[in-house]
Amino acid sequence: MALNSDLQTRINEVVERIVRGEIDFHKVDELLEGNATVVARRLALERLTGTSLPNIGSTVIDYDEIKNRNAENVIGAVQVPLGIVGPLEVRGDYAKGRFYVPLATTEGALIASVNRGAKAVTVSGGARVKIVFDGMTRAPVFALDNIDEVVRFLEWVSSNFQEIKRVAESTTSHGKLVKIEPFVLGNNVWLRMVYETGDAMGMNMATIASEAVCDFIESNFPQARCVAVSGNMCSDKKQSAVNVLHGRGKTVVAEVLVPHEVVTKVLKSDSQLIHEVNLRKNWLGGARAGTIYQFNAHFANIVAAIFLATGQDMAQVVESSMGYTWTEVRENGLYIGVTLTSLEVGTVGGGTRLPTQREALSIMGVYGSGNPPGTNAKKFAEIVAATVLAGELNLLAALANRELGRAHKRLGRAVKV
Amino acid sequence: MALNSDLQTRINEVVERIVRGEIDFHKVDELLEGNATVVARRLALERLTGTSLPNIGSTVIDYDEIKNRNAENVIGAVQVPLGIVGPLEVRGDYAKGRFYVPLATTEGALIASVNRGAKAVTVSGGARVKIVFDGMTRAPVFALDNIDEVVRFLEWVSSNFQEIKRVAESTTSHGKLVKIEPFVLGNNVWLRMVYETGDAMGMNMATIASEAVCDFIESNFPQARCVAVSGNMCSDKKQSAVNVLHGRGKTVVAEVLVPHEVVTKVLKSDSQLIHEVNLRKNWLGGARAGTIYQFNAHFANIVAAIFLATGQDMAQVVESSMGYTWTEVRENGLYIGVTLTSLEVGTVGGGTRLPTQREALSIMGVYGSGNPPGTNAKKFAEIVAATVLAGELNLLAALANRELGRAHKRLGRAVKV
Amino acid sequence: MALNSDLQTRINEVVERIVRGEIDFHKVDELLEGNATVVARRLALERLTGTSLPNIGSTVIDYDEIKNRNAENVIGAVQVPLGIVGPLEVRGDYAKGRFYVPLATTEGALIASVNRGAKAVTVSGGARVKIVFDGMTRAPVFALDNIDEVVRFLEWVSSNFQEIKRVAESTTSHGKLVKIEPFVLGNNVWLRMVYETGDAMGMNMATIASEAVCDFIESNFPQARCVAVSGNMCSDKKQSAVNVLHGRGKTVVAEVLVPHEVVTKVLKSDSQLIHEVNLRKNWLGGARAGTIYQFNAHFANIVAAIFLATGQDMAQVVESSMGYTWTEVRENGLYIGVTLTSLEVGTVGGGTRLPTQREALSIMGVYGSGNPPGTNAKKFAEIVAATVLAGELNLLAALANRELGRAHKRLGRAVKV
Amino acid sequence: MALNSDLQTRINEVVERIVRGEIDFHKVDELLEGNATVVARRLALERLTGTSLPNIGSTVIDYDEIKNRNAENVIGAVQVPLGIVGPLEVRGDYAKGRFYVPLATTEGALIASVNRGAKAVTVSGGARVKIVFDGMTRAPVFALDNIDEVVRFLEWVSSNFQEIKRVAESTTSHGKLVKIEPFVLGNNVWLRMVYETGDAMGMNMATIASEAVCDFIESNFPQARCVAVSGNMCSDKKQSAVNVLHGRGKTVVAEVLVPHEVVTKVLKSDSQLIHEVNLRKNWLGGARAGTIYQFNAHFANIVAAIFLATGQDMAQVVESSMGYTWTEVRENGLYIGVTLTSLEVGTVGGGTRLPTQREALSIMGVYGSGNPPGTNAKKFAEIVAATVLAGELNLLAALANRELGRAHKRLGRAVKV
Repeated sequence: MALNSDLQTRINEVVERIVRGEIDFHKVDELLEGNATVVARRLALERLTGTSLPNIGSTVIDYDEIKNRNAENVIGAVQVPLGIVGPLEVRGDYAKGRFYVPLATTEGALIASVNRGAKAVTVSGGARVKIVFDGMTRAPVFALDNIDEVVRFLEWVSSNFQEIKRVAESTTSHGKLVKIEPFVLGNNVWLRMVYETGDAMGMNMATIASEAVCDFIESNFPQARCVAVSGNMCSDKKQSAVNVLHGRGKTVVAEVLVPHEVVTKVLKSDSQLIHEVNLRKNWLGGARAGTIYQFNAHFANIVAAIFLATGQDMAQVVESSMGYTWTEVRENGLYIGVTLTSLEVGTVGGGTRLPTQREALSIMGVYGSGNPPGTNAKKFAEIVAATVLAGELNLLAALANRELGRAHKRLGRAVKV
Repeated sequence: MALNSDLQTRINEVVERIVRGEIDFHKVDELLEGNATVVARRLALERLTGTSLPNIGSTVIDYDEIKNRNAENVIGAVQVPLGIVGPLEVRGDYAKGRFYVPLATTEGALIASVNRGAKAVTVSGGARVKIVFDGMTRAPVFALDNIDEVVRFLEWVSSNFQEIKRVAESTTSHGKLVKIEPFVLGNNVWLRMVYETGDAMGMNMATIASEAVCDFIESNFPQARCVAVSGNMCSDKKQSAVNVLHGRGKTVVAEVLVPHEVVTKVLKSDSQLIHEVNLRKNWLGGARAGTIYQFNAHFANIVAAIFLATGQDMAQVVESSMGYTWTEVRENGLYIGVTLTSLEVGTVGGGTRLPTQREALSIMGVYGSGNPPGTNAKKFAEIVAATVLAGELNLLAALANRELGRAHKRLGRAVKV
Repeated sequence: MALNSDLQTRINEVVERIVRGEIDFHKVDELLEGNATVVARRLALERLTGTSLPNIGSTVIDYDEIKNRNAENVIGAVQVPLGIVGPLEVRGDYAKGRFYVPLATTEGALIASVNRGAKAVTVSGGARVKIVFDGMTRAPVFALDNIDEVVRFLEWVSSNFQEIKRVAESTTSHGKLVKIEPFVLGNNVWLRMVYETGDAMGMNMATIASEAVCDFIESNFPQARCVAVSGNMCSDKKQSAVNVLHGRGKTVVAEVLVPHEVVTKVLKSDSQLIHEVNLRKNWLGGARAGTIYQFNAHFANIVAAIFLATGQDMAQVVESSMGYTWTEVRENGLYIGVTLTSLEVGTVGGGTRLPTQREALSIMGVYGSGNPPGTNAKKFAEIVAATVLAGELNLLAALANRELGRAHKRLGRAVKV
Repeated sequence: MALNSDLQTRINEVVERIVRGEIDFHKVDELLEGNATVVARRLALERLTGTSLPNIGSTVIDYDEIKNRNAENVIGAVQVPLGIVGPLEVRGDYAKGRFYVPLATTEGALIASVNRGAKAVTVSGGARVKIVFDGMTRAPVFALDNIDEVVRFLEWVSSNFQEIKRVAESTTSHGKLVKIEPFVLGNNVWLRMVYETGDAMGMNMATIASEAVCDFIESNFPQARCVAVSGNMCSDKKQSAVNVLHGRGKTVVAEVLVPHEVVTKVLKSDSQLIHEVNLRKNWLGGARAGTIYQFNAHFANIVAAIFLATGQDMAQVVESSMGYTWTEVRENGLYIGVTLTSLEVGTVGGGTRLPTQREALSIMGVYGSGNPPGTNAKKFAEIVAATVLAGELNLLAALANRELGRAHKRLGRAVKV
């Protein structure tokens, strides 16, 4: 990045002040503009830590595009390899046809593994996918004096739902408050508010709307004190029973019936062995370990790689990886179905607008708002679930074939460590 | 990237063949070399999907460096903003002094939030950190005919531990098999093998060693059939009770006693209110929701952002986010301690060698092998835990202050969505 | 029991045939009448096992009253000491006033412990109690071919609810089918049917009604195959998230504000210490142990003792013991609230009609059907929750006082074991 | 019970004083002797509640035998029908041969159901049973100032184990402290102490020994403050991950290979159908419901009925019901294995000495101390596990056969409710 000398001088001054401890990193935004702030912070950090950070400084991201949106104290960017899986045939209600799916990862063998699964799914006629729930949640926690007040509060919320809905929706142009699920523990009450959020993942929308609801409640039912706008029954960035049972984001099922000859030829495996691995590993092993919400082999790998490629919230990999893999050996093939209970994705907002992420979404034809709203996010969710299905199918086969370590040895690293 | 015309021609031919469906993406590695394969795949994908992917193509990653290590079917890279938090005073056994911590995220307000927490921790004298467990695990599942065989197998494993250890360690130059934890369910047995893996996160090392053990067992105790080298009691990329109770990766505690005036001045908050938020949100809310392994506010946010910045396995955010936040209002301040039961990090291997990730690690002085081995990963783990502490402290304060939505409104996005 | 010689002869013949292995125990019901069958089985068992069972044979239970209702192959009865707790002041919506509560147990110190808690509750003005959910559930599991059929099935169930309700209710004179909660996992569907069951605990009623629904479904939507009338999402005699979140039986909260001087004088304890024990033991200890559904000290003790005294289903102690104990140190006293999520009790049916159990229920004025129906079971549930509150309060105080072992040493056993 | 007139007069005086509220129920022990106290309390209670309690008063229990051991404020006894199951062939390491098993229950059809299962097990050659863990636990929770102290404490405990063991064992003539499992959460430490307790269930023994350890620790490592002698990581009367993974009481596996013709002839069922019910109900249903520790059909029913018959602690049905049922359809039959992770039983102490319970234990030849100590409790545990196996096998068959509701309709109650 070539800089004119005046700007260079101003940057240098700022760098000096940071290094001398006179100003903090975030103060730089007040002293410089745009990418110059990024340069100044990076230079200062190099001085402070005795490092050289040219690669971090080499980025296509324009600071003005992310400032006040995606990150603070920015010094550059991190770059992660992006690979492609596909074609993957998807037979959803929104995603229909063959898709190429971008995966960002540093874990060798993952992309190749999912790709073989995608081939098996596709030659089997594709993944059928259904979304059975859609909604984003936020659950403030309220403290009341006693259980009598609690009961009165629950009744008040129920009879004032329309007014609460109006308050919540006044903060957003797209979000809709669909329902409120109340939970009680002694004198504590959680109101788990479920929102429709269109093509956005919707967490911020839900938070802002819920804060307005909290203010409204405290003004109109002052006996209920809002302790925190998030009371962990949302549950955001956490695995939880309420997310599994009620869903958060989208609950999606993807399935395929793989003819036995496809199992043999494409996966080099055996249907009965795959089924056995699923039972003893995912179900017995999961239960024995107390892996309560992930009776699956590696949903997390695929979810993380797609999330990273497409600008999703990486901390939501936690609950978006929850779910079950179920297999049946049938006369005409191996049935495999994956159920993701809480897949939280968006095609607008968050990191989706960033240069590379936007391109990654566009590869699947799901960047930006859908028409009607919400259809792009649903289409994307169906593709994600189908890709998870492919990844799950292949790993079970690879384990049945005892090829796991070998794959990592060959693809994951070249030398003995 | 300027290419000579001959190479350009060869690339074009490959692109045509991909587009016509004659070859798969992974076949390209056999037809072209190095970054030319990346170009060919990307060009073909653009053609196939009618997209333009210049930003994905703009990367500092050299394909030859990641091929057979980190990714397959590569078409370029994804870029994520990298911000800096600090200085953060850490008082660990390995990390001692003030550190700057790189966070990669697209979630507005996160870095600023952790940064304020870091300030509060630092002015309070820094975070005390202790690692109380260190070990990487792999747990194959074996099927036996009946419970008599199971008991014989357990005895055989116990009395042949030294031989098993020798077999496992023959596959690795650094890894050590420390112990084997057996679990039984009917006629199924899991051997949870615990390894020391030095500065590597160690999952691949553990997998390869465990495969050798499986082969050895099947040769020498053929009644035990290895169904899968990973039987989900590891538990990799999953939250589980066995990980929480026995640890996986590193179990780390970070804590600080924040003087009340620091709570007031730096966090603009109140110790008692913060404690109450911790109890009603993290503990009551967590329990009520069935958030079994995450009695915390947002470990996942900080873990994900550091993991992404430093080339860790993003799917391991799932279990690395498990843990507890505990607070006490004391006469002389607010005590807050975070316990991460299964923090899985490495400073060698995986994505740590990539250009930007390597730099990010070097900012903290933890890139590569430590001396003695393992000390760099431990130092890094201590910094991660201290940063989680900072993030947790600040979010609790922000919630107590009712500033969450406002922060997102201001920093997380500019317009009403 | 004096027998005429003819009957004695017939009994002897039957005994001989059992001992010779010619007939089974249950065959006796065809050869003898009433209590004579009990005598014959016991005499035969004495012969077969070389034992003497006079105490088991000494019972007030008339076999004709329990035959085909409560037990088979009966040889007599087991007797368990019954103690009394109270008076306990209860301020519920159904239970109002001072109650004496019968507890059957063999665990020394339990009754005395609950009794001291009851005194503390009563002198504090009594326990406020509220029932916030009431319903019994049964959840058959259905297998379908694929996810398309699953979605069609869910729609069919939803649009045929009134007809399903009619079918269910045709099997019972009291039960009402209130709603159906569907859950999906791949091609599997659970229909969790929620019933109002009046004063009965209602499990059998719900089972029979649900079987009729299964038959109806298989006739009218044959693509859904009922695999089992209970698919474990009920969840009967098991702790589960769905029971905790949705309730099963009755969800009840009981609370009291104990003035600090009552804590000091009656409980010989300290409010802050009790609160600390609750936090570190019930909440931190519970979470650390993975005690997912029982953040309490010993709900199970009180529930088991009342259940045994009153003829409840002892296997349902498992889920009826789930719940939370929450404490707050307030200016005017120690607040303690217990939340039982799934308290399954009845005052008609099951073991409630047995001679001693009927008397135990009558002590609390809750034997038989209420007017209107359901009010007796609700009143009973309130008393149970208030007693759990008393037991919980006292154990926390006892632990804070470090008097646990001493109490057991003094009351629980006389000698060193 | 005939009383002389003087005693009658004294009883009447005491009754009057209770009714007038002058004395409490427990005061009676100071004013009267033996069974007279029981009579006085019962008469007073009848007066206070306007009830008549002749059946409760009719008991074989002598108050002098249970006073200060099993119950307080005693007014009589509750009686529960006792039925017999068997013969059941058991092939354990301690229990060998055919056994008759007493079950106390008020749930119609249960005994008949288990009995049919016992027949199937027996004609299949009997249940193989193995105990793979044995130990009773108590886990005090300690609060320390900070994590440095925590680490020092853990080291101190480790290096002082022999002394701690001596202190613990000084309180008991039979118990042995086998090991201490430490767990950390911030500045909190649990020491889960594992004891061998011979033929006793051992909870009281472990409590008293652990209290001595707490006193010893506070004297010698005063920085560790014992908050409660039970910190819920024991975990007593609660289901928990630590109990499942480490065991509490006895971890027992019982299994049988049922020839397909036995499935057909005795169980009137089909091996494949039973396997399917096990998978879809116990495993999928259990996971979907969040039934974390009970992947079984109804362990709780059998455990509760045997516990009640034999004087076990009924609140421990909660964790003793945890476990897994696993089935395999093999060429030569249906394999079924049940794994009980935390079966807590004793043949001495607690309620085992009571008249009817003692007889019930003697039916199985397991009353009192074994020779060598511990063998009677182990033998009993094997019989319990085998009976659970029988009950589980039959219920799965009954569900596969769709006979559940019908059985309850026929055996569980005579009329429509």
